[in-house]
Amino acid sequence: MSKQKNLSQPPAGLAALFETPYYAVMFTSQRRSGDAGYGDMAERMVALAADQTGYLGAESVRDATGLGITMSYWRSEADIAAWRRHAEHQLARDQGRADWYEHYAVRVARVERSYGWTRSDGPADPQAAAAAKDAGVKA
Amino acid sequence: MSKQKNLSQPPAGLAALFETPYYAVMFTSQRRSGDAGYGDMAERMVALAADQTGYLGAESVRDATGLGITMSYWRSEADIAAWRRHAEHQLARDQGRADWYEHYAVRVARVERSYGWTRSDGPADPQAAAAAKDAGVKA
Repeated sequence: MSKQKNLSQPPAGLAALFETPYYAVMFTSQRRSGDAGYGDMAERMVALAADQTGYLGAESVRDATGLGITMSYWRSEADIAAWRRHAEHQLARDQGRADWYEHYAVRVARVERSYGWTRSDGPADPQAAAAAKDAGVKA
Repeated sequence: MSKQKNLSQPPAGLAALFETPYYAVMFTSQRRSGDAGYGDMAERMVALAADQTGYLGAESVRDATGLGITMSYWRSEADIAAWRRHAEHQLARDQGRADWYEHYAVRVARVERSYGWTRSDGPADPQAAAAAKDAGVKA
């Protein structure tokens, strides 16, 4: 059984389980109140990021208090660096600090392993299956 | 200038910028409707995780549709494996698949670098400062 089987076609809101290793940009942020053009720009940045070399996917959640986490997934660190240098993305980040955010943290990480579960998979622990596979045991 | 300066005492909702490298468990999930004991168990797991060896911190957001991202940060992969084997955590995960979740994805990643920004830091790009530091240039 492949641990990549699950979520190869991920449900809404989840990114696929890409072939490891890949890279994640983890962006945790607190929005200020008011839109001030944020919605349009966020939509534009999602579309623009998806056009970049090495972009794999993204996941994003923001709650009613304005706290949000956005993960974007990339094939390599070089791809992340290129996106960071994109002129339009730089302008959006500048406006983010000027208008939209109270504070944020950015973490760049190398994804070593991933697995997923959907209700139709049944109750068994997908982590156990993945761990057994890592240890060379048939799951 | 240290890129660790910002967020050494992080604002509410954000975890600190721990000394790299460290490890992140990225848990993206879709909740089912209804509580079914979820709130109490989530609170218990947050407290229990915080007691484990190697636990550094966590960030968590869930929106009104039930889509959530929780990041927990750990000193090492061995610490993550030990937490995964914790009996009470295993029971909580079993109940999660039985009752609380429609689907989820788990990604384990090694955080290579991180930086943060707060409004009082002013408008300059903290990424530029971190990048210059990485390149051996005074920021």
